[in-house]
This record gives sequence, C-alpha cells and structure tokens, in this order.
Amino acid sequence: MRIVVLAGGIGGARFLRGLRKAVADGTGGGPDATTITVVGNTGDDITLFGLRVCPDLDTVMYTLGDGINTTNGWGRADETFTIREELAAHGQESLWFTLGDRDFATHIMRTAMLNEGLPLSAATESLCRRWDLGMRLLPMTDDPVETHVVVDDDGTERDLHFQEWWVRHRAALPARAIYGAGAEAAAPAPGVLEALEEADFVLLPPSNPVVSVGTILSVPGLREAVAAKTVVGVSPIIGAAPVRGMADACLAAIGVETSARAVAEHYGPDLLDGWLVDTVDAEVAASGVTGISVRSRPLYMTDDDATADIAREAIAMARKIVGAAR
Amino acid sequence: MRIVVLAGGIGGARFLRGLRKAVADGTGGGPDATTITVVGNTGDDITLFGLRVCPDLDTVMYTLGDGINTTNGWGRADETFTIREELAAHGQESLWFTLGDRDFATHIMRTAMLNEGLPLSAATESLCRRWDLGMRLLPMTDDPVETHVVVDDDGTERDLHFQEWWVRHRAALPARAIYGAGAEAAAPAPGVLEALEEADFVLLPPSNPVVSVGTILSVPGLREAVAAKTVVGVSPIIGAAPVRGMADACLAAIGVETSARAVAEHYGPDLLDGWLVDTVDAEVAASGVTGISVRSRPLYMTDDDATADIAREAIAMARKIVGAAR
Repeated sequence: MRIVVLAGGIGGARFLRGLRKAVADGTGGGPDATTITVVGNTGDDITLFGLRVCPDLDTVMYTLGDGINTTNGWGRADETFTIREELAAHGQESLWFTLGDRDFATHIMRTAMLNEGLPLSAATESLCRRWDLGMRLLPMTDDPVETHVVVDDDGTERDLHFQEWWVRHRAALPARAIYGAGAEAAAPAPGVLEALEEADFVLLPPSNPVVSVGTILSVPGLREAVAAKTVVGVSPIIGAAPVRGMADACLAAIGVETSARAVAEHYGPDLLDGWLVDTVDAEVAASGVTGISVRSRPLYMTDDDATADIAREAIAMARKIVGAAR
Repeated sequence: MRIVVLAGGIGGARFLRGLRKAVADGTGGGPDATTITVVGNTGDDITLFGLRVCPDLDTVMYTLGDGINTTNGWGRADETFTIREELAAHGQESLWFTLGDRDFATHIMRTAMLNEGLPLSAATESLCRRWDLGMRLLPMTDDPVETHVVVDDDGTERDLHFQEWWVRHRAALPARAIYGAGAEAAAPAPGVLEALEEADFVLLPPSNPVVSVGTILSVPGLREAVAAKTVVGVSPIIGAAPVRGMADACLAAIGVETSARAVAEHYGPDLLDGWLVDTVDAEVAASGVTGISVRSRPLYMTDDDATADIAREAIAMARKIVGAAR
C-alpha cells in the first residue's frame, strides 16, 4: 500500500504519528507492505538571521523523530536558548520567532547545504537521516514559495510574511487576502509527482486548509496530480472552531465559513472523495456533502492511540472508495 | 596620543587589556587624549558549517568586552554547547574546532551581514557595538586571506588550513612553509592606512610573529605604512620558548630561531625601532640588536596590572624614540 499525505505543521505531524502507528500495528494494512510519503508545506519557511527555517518540515521531522517539544507542539525537547539570549544582547530583531539552540543547529546545517547549492529536498533528506521517521519526507517544492498575508492594520493595507502575521501578531490583524508569493513559478520537488503517481490514495490530515494544504495544492501540477487519486481528508474543524491554531482567521480571509462542511465544500468533490468529521458534526455526515462521502467519528488526536484510530478509519474509507471504483 | 596595535588572538587581546588600563589610568598618556586602533589578524578565519568564524577578531572582542572564557583564553564565558551536541548527533565533521552556542551567535550574525554584502570591517564594527571595547577594532583586510601551512605528513606534503594544523593537529605535523592564501590580492580594510597615517606610534603585542603579526604585515601596503612609523614590540618569546601557544613551530617553518633576539632580527630594523624583552633575556638588551633599541623587564602578562606595566613601558619607549627623532 502506498500512501501520500499532504502535511502542514503540528496537526499534520501528530496525524502522521498516528498513521505510522496504524500501519506498524498491521491494522492499517501491514507494516512492510506500506510506504508513506509526506509532502510537506514550505510556504511557512522564513529566513531569520540569514538562516533558512522550515517550520512545517521540522515539526514533522522532530515529531516523528521523538525530538519534539510535546508541550508546545513545535521546537525541540530539552532545548536551550543561549543563542537567543546573545541575539537579544546584540539588540537583534525578529526575536518574536522563538528559536532554540537545537533548532538553530538544524537551520545552520540546512542553510550550509542550501548555500552549497543543494536543493531543499536533498537538504531535507540529509537532515532526516539522523531521525527514524519511518516514512519519506519531501518538501512540496524546491523553489521559493512564501505565504504572505495582506492585512488590515487600522485601515492601512500591509503585506506581511505569514509568520509575521501568525506568530508575531497572533493572526489578530484581519486578513484580507492570503497568497503564495512565488507559487506560480514553482515546480513540485523531485519525487512528489512520482509518489502521487504510484500512490493508492492520498490523505489530508487535519492541517490548515488554507496555509498548509492550500499552499501545497497551489504548486502548479500538484492539485491535478492529487485530484487524480482517491483523497480522504480529516476535518481540521470540530464544531465551529479549529482543533488547533487559528485556521478560522485563514478561512475568513478566503471567505470560507469555519465549519467541517464548508471546508469539505471548499476542497470540493473534484479533489475530495472522503471526509471524516467529528461526532459533534454528525449532521454533516447525515445530510451529506454533494460528491463527497462523509463519516463521523471522534477526531481529537489526544494521543498516538486515538490518532491511530482516526488514521485507520481514514485508510479504511480510502480503501473502500478505491475498491468501489475498480 | 594615537596608538595603532597589530594584534593576533590571545596574546594580543591580553596585551590590549593592559594597554587600555595603562591609558585609562592616565599614566599611559591620559585617558581622553588617547585613541587606540587595533588592526586584527584575519588569516586564521575559517568557514565552518557555512558560518564565517574570525577567531582572532572575536578573541580581541570578547577579551576586551569581558565576555571571554578566561581559563581557555578563547571562546565565551558561561558558554553552553547544545549546538555542538546536535551537530555531533547528525554526524557532522569539523567538530575539532570547538564552538559554543554564544560563539555561534556571533558567527550567525556575522555571516548574515557578510551574505547581505557588508564587508567584514562593517560586520566587525556592528558586532563590537554590543561590547564596550574602549578602542576601535579593524580587520587587517576585508578581502579573503587564509593562512595555510604546508606540512610534512609522514613524508607526504599536504596543504592545510592554519586552523586544521594548529587546532586539529596541535601543530604536531612539521611545517615546511606557511603562507597567506589570497594575501597578494588583498587590500588593507577601510580605516587601517588612515589610522596608521595618523598614529604617533605602533605597538606589536607579544602575538605570534609569523601567523599573527606576519600575516597582517603581508597585506600589500601594510608593512610599508607600519615601517614608516615608530614601532615598539613586546617579545612573544621568553628564554627559548613562546610565552603561549606554539610560535616555535611557526618560527621553525620560516627558519627563525625561537629566541627574543631572532624574532627582533626577523622583524628587522627597517620595521622595528624598540623591543621589549623579558629579564631572562637581559643579555639581548645588554649586547643590543643592530638598529633596534632594546630594554628588558618582566614580560609575563599575569594579570591586567602586570600587563598595564608592560604597556606603559612600551608606550614610554615609543614616546622616547619619537621624541628623539624630532
């Protein structure tokens, strides 16, 4: 079985831990018989202090590698902040984006490889070697794509890097538009289209539909390659609120209601074949979404076991749709 | 009074602390009336993990800024080594050059500035702003000059970066030649020739005559500009041994004996006007060195007070020579 997952940061990474567990238990289709390829969002990437930081790729890498700070969901466990202290003593800006020393080591190594001319995909592969991910992690593209947010700052329109809006301003400034700068000229990273071609199905974790999954799908050729497959998604919205993070602020910017139904309709039946919603949204499953098969079940990823159950259901749903289509 | 000092790393930095104290006490000529410009060696600079490391400039900066690890003489006080731990976990090489996290912060900031197109002199000025040096620190050049050592490795000739020979191999491989790669095409950094032009005299601290002072003097135009001034040096050799470090290994490579007299003769009377030797080398003062005035006094820089006394003597000697020449 070959599975491709389009993943953002924390939500995507936690789903992947569950998926890995489901597959390893055999209940997901057998451990050796299954390969998982993760296509990671790079729109959140940012250059800080001259170093290239890839928050989503790193969150996936650290989470799967047991190196994540489980309390925050981002950054490293057993972290120290000596460099940050020094940067502050030098009066450096950009300290609103917290980077620990272990995390800095990742960015130092990545930047050195990029400056030597390696593409991001090769640098990512090299960084992943230290960790035991149990799956392959590919950036969506090797080309520079940066998610920007046009905000309303007290009546003045400003264009911010996504991280500046998200982390510095905690998404508090109303977003008028969100776009991927450079996306139109980007190409899928080596291996991405091949993995999709060979995939039995594609899973969308409960990642942000706008700035994570949406950004991945904005890379030319990627949406079509994904849509050609059976795609099952896990709703990132439970009731009227995002499970985590500030997806509502992103959905508002593109005029989509914060609801499990609205996100499914936003993805649309040309992309999405199956949709898992939480039991509180059982009504969506009962009344249905045109062209998309919907099931409801508990969706809180409280631990790896609970998440593995969600992943098993997504796999089962995808296999059923694939089987029915044959 | 305007003083220019050509400085290497540890020995130069410690001498500068003493000089600063001597000047501040007024006994060196009055605190406000004196400016000190340090021309620092950059031949030891090395790129590690994609970051530009300037060991001598940083040793001067940290030492004068009270941020130095006083036990080692290099690196930062209160240092942590988290990044090093991470690099080791990733199987990175070049860990023979120990870099702590605080030190890494310096190299990250410097590299970011260099990659933005700033010259090393501007990056150095910016880094120094955080520290209260009490003097101006200039790199000898903004151009890339790297000291290389041709070694005899069990009969095979190998060309090593100075740091690889010095730190990795502890200067144990016999050196056949030492040269500054890129030196012939380098120009003095902005401000260096101007400072020399305006200087009342130049002091040579007990820095390595080959790979510190020698490298600085190898930048085209610098030796002539220095030689045009009254120059007083402090011998880095006491008895038959270097005060610190492995200057003997460097002197051997260029065929100079490890003695206070031989180093004075190596600099030569066209460059050097006064020479301070230790009391154990009183014979050199007694018998004299052709064209160079020599005095003996205790030269161990045991603390800032002892070092200030040495600096006062060097200043007094320089002023006497300048006065006599008028």
